[in-house]
Amino acid sequence: MTEPRVGIYPGSFDPVTNGHLDVLRRACRLFDRVVVAVLQNPAKTPLFTREERLALLAESTKELPNVSVESFDGLLVELAARHRACAVIRGVRAAGDLESELRMAQMNRRLYEDAVTILVPTDPAYAFVSSTLVKEVALFGGDVSGLVPPPVARALAQKRARREGVV
Amino acid sequence: MTEPRVGIYPGSFDPVTNGHLDVLRRACRLFDRVVVAVLQNPAKTPLFTREERLALLAESTKELPNVSVESFDGLLVELAARHRACAVIRGVRAAGDLESELRMAQMNRRLYEDAVTILVPTDPAYAFVSSTLVKEVALFGGDVSGLVPPPVARALAQKRARREGVV
Amino acid sequence: MTEPRVGIYPGSFDPVTNGHLDVLRRACRLFDRVVVAVLQNPAKTPLFTREERLALLAESTKELPNVSVESFDGLLVELAARHRACAVIRGVRAAGDLESELRMAQMNRRLYEDAVTILVPTDPAYAFVSSTLVKEVALFGGDVSGLVPPPVARALAQKRARREGVV
Amino acid sequence: MTEPRVGIYPGSFDPVTNGHLDVLRRACRLFDRVVVAVLQNPAKTPLFTREERLALLAESTKELPNVSVESFDGLLVELAARHRACAVIRGVRAAGDLESELRMAQMNRRLYEDAVTILVPTDPAYAFVSSTLVKEVALFGGDVSGLVPPPVARALAQKRARREGVV
Amino acid sequence: MTEPRVGIYPGSFDPVTNGHLDVLRRACRLFDRVVVAVLQNPAKTPLFTREERLALLAESTKELPNVSVESFDGLLVELAARHRACAVIRGVRAAGDLESELRMAQMNRRLYEDAVTILVPTDPAYAFVSSTLVKEVALFGGDVSGLVPPPVARALAQKRARREGVV
Amino acid sequence: MTEPRVGIYPGSFDPVTNGHLDVLRRACRLFDRVVVAVLQNPAKTPLFTREERLALLAESTKELPNVSVESFDGLLVELAARHRACAVIRGVRAAGDLESELRMAQMNRRLYEDAVTILVPTDPAYAFVSSTLVKEVALFGGDVSGLVPPPVARALAQKRARREGVV
Repeated sequence: MTEPRVGIYPGSFDPVTNGHLDVLRRACRLFDRVVVAVLQNPAKTPLFTREERLALLAESTKELPNVSVESFDGLLVELAARHRACAVIRGVRAAGDLESELRMAQMNRRLYEDAVTILVPTDPAYAFVSSTLVKEVALFGGDVSGLVPPPVARALAQKRARREGVV
Repeated sequence: MTEPRVGIYPGSFDPVTNGHLDVLRRACRLFDRVVVAVLQNPAKTPLFTREERLALLAESTKELPNVSVESFDGLLVELAARHRACAVIRGVRAAGDLESELRMAQMNRRLYEDAVTILVPTDPAYAFVSSTLVKEVALFGGDVSGLVPPPVARALAQKRARREGVV
Repeated sequence: MTEPRVGIYPGSFDPVTNGHLDVLRRACRLFDRVVVAVLQNPAKTPLFTREERLALLAESTKELPNVSVESFDGLLVELAARHRACAVIRGVRAAGDLESELRMAQMNRRLYEDAVTILVPTDPAYAFVSSTLVKEVALFGGDVSGLVPPPVARALAQKRARREGVV
Repeated sequence: MTEPRVGIYPGSFDPVTNGHLDVLRRACRLFDRVVVAVLQNPAKTPLFTREERLALLAESTKELPNVSVESFDGLLVELAARHRACAVIRGVRAAGDLESELRMAQMNRRLYEDAVTILVPTDPAYAFVSSTLVKEVALFGGDVSGLVPPPVARALAQKRARREGVV
Repeated sequence: MTEPRVGIYPGSFDPVTNGHLDVLRRACRLFDRVVVAVLQNPAKTPLFTREERLALLAESTKELPNVSVESFDGLLVELAARHRACAVIRGVRAAGDLESELRMAQMNRRLYEDAVTILVPTDPAYAFVSSTLVKEVALFGGDVSGLVPPPVARALAQKRARREGVV
Repeated sequence: MTEPRVGIYPGSFDPVTNGHLDVLRRACRLFDRVVVAVLQNPAKTPLFTREERLALLAESTKELPNVSVESFDGLLVELAARHRACAVIRGVRAAGDLESELRMAQMNRRLYEDAVTILVPTDPAYAFVSSTLVKEVALFGGDVSGLVPPPVARALAQKRARREGVV
């Protein structure tokens, strides 16, 4: 019997978008289990706390049976080693994404040879969707339904209402 | 019991390089079986015939137990469907490779939703190695050992000798 | 009374795709008249003759009241001057398109200062659609409906049937 | 009688450069009216206040009869809708500018279908000029005349003198 | 006494443009001698013969005292070794030029460690000028004076006249 | 007797990596003297102080006889003029580095015509190594030996120990 194949899908997910979910849904077909790993980047102040991001991901991925969600704040390769992962999954939307992805992939390969970074092209319909752009639009009151899963759309509306002093 | 996971690794392989083999070796760990698919591009005249390319690939991959080699000349997605492949594997060396890869990935997704294109970063040591550049250097007598597997180095030397009228 | 504003939309259109039509439909709202200019590139052998390309464009644009179609084979700026055009329109899908577009724009500006090149982003749903890729897929029997207008889909099917010796 | 065609030219303009003015001068020929819209980006601390930027723009564009200047701090598409604009104008200098421009264009298209984003290539003589680089050079005492309009050169010299404690 | 420093400036130069001459003039200040090396690319049919290209270069560089011109058709590194060159000089206009330059630089470094490839940014005023675009414009009768040296402008006019059957 | 040729190699060097040293070693062969210039960027808080960065550079370059190290905090071109430098040296790893390098090169050319910016391709083995990525990995306890010179590896380990409260 062979060991199950595990992939790690790391990111900030501040918040998760439909672009992320498209990549995740496709990656799920390649692995026995996919671990969505929520990165704590100490250099950035996220809009959503770690707990909010984990909860939004859990709710948005509940129909995917082989997905689990957790957070990490050390080196990605340590998480990959702990899960005995064979792959690190990253979405790519455009050429401009690639160079930093290649650098991270090559550094991670050097630090932990066992996990292969694979880049999964995003659905072109979401190629313009980033967490950053979604937040900007939503906090100015723009409509982001269709770009993020419903729980995220509701959470963004609440953040906005709180900022505006309505709630 | 689940179905075995199959990946297709398509390309011209005119000839196979150590960059290709690095991608293939890493991809082999992700799938139960990897089919290396030698593309017949009617618009290009290859240096090596289809049979030569298949033979060089077979010899260069013989230590990889879950790899098979075959040629195809229709739509890649038909080959993927025939093998019930869950993935199409492509190497990427630099950002300039990405846009045409994304276009092909998106077209193939539209034609055959079941196979996910995954892009695997090449070892940086081979980032400058392409079949085209290797052929140019070798046919002018430059040393390409270390950039291609030994059977390919020998085959390139023979092509050159024939061109020079030595053999 | 001011002079009508005319834009030129040049290209090979071998054949016209839904990506081209998306750009054209949007450009039509900016100008009083848009001239679609079919370029005769002596360095390439097109799949469709000049007459076929003009006919397919005419049929595909007939619901756009302020569009006309013609061919040209000299310098684009001469055509722009003849129409007293204020703009040259080009679609852009991705960063890789941009550098050659910028070079042409700057050369054309130098040759004819009066026409401004404007680049119009393609609908992301068509970002992977190029005439070249559509031809490749269609001639191998892949389904391109939804990527090209119906007259082009029919014309591609006929080209394929002729190649296969069916017609 | 048709409605006048209005274009919006948004940006930070901190400060306006000759590259911006080159794009604006060319865009003016395409529209009946162009609204230069000074963006308030809450995430950045500008060198020049909103009022200073508006004043420098007004002075630098006074010879362009169909240009007006205003500031906005919500969604760009709301401003476009208020002016019934048919176009959003952006300058592009190099391929690296394009991907973020495409993302914004596609998001704005989704939010407000009526305005087409058009990208206008900058004069190559100004391709290296950005507000950021101009500020860096000017605040270290480098000569930026020829890269910015005279009122901006004077304002930068004043900012520098104030920092050095001379004024 | 130290050995003189020699740089090699290779290219097709079909024909030499003012962009090439700008790079060359600047490179001349870095080296004791610069060898302009005219590449014979067997895969392309040039507009100007090898002799014409050498003559146009010789005439266009005659005021540069430390420049010599020659042709080569083997590996560039052999030419570099023969001249004991410490550098290979290449112009770069835009990011799109870079990846193929990096690949060649890395291959050449592997074949001949002693020569360092250096990339010299072209004057932005010539960033849109390529031999290919100049030929296209000139052969259609467009004005390329200011983009190429006078002997090249005359030679292009002659090529055109011959094509048109005038001479 | 001709004047000695001097090149300036500017950067943040926070900290110096083996990628920087590879570029420096190669540049040393082109010039009589190379000045490594440590930039004080007021907009960034470095991990290493100016004095630490200078000391690490001095120790890491001590076997290079024609290299000196100093810091500067004004315009680079003033430093170049003071040293009568004929060149400014910059490493390039990938296409994404190029556009900002071109902008700086063109601005510097305008400010001080006498110094030519030359871009030197980094060894592909270090193409993924940046000071930023090295710091991230080292401060999380990852192994960066082989990516930075030994004094830098020791200094990073000390920074980490101090952060963890061990020292």
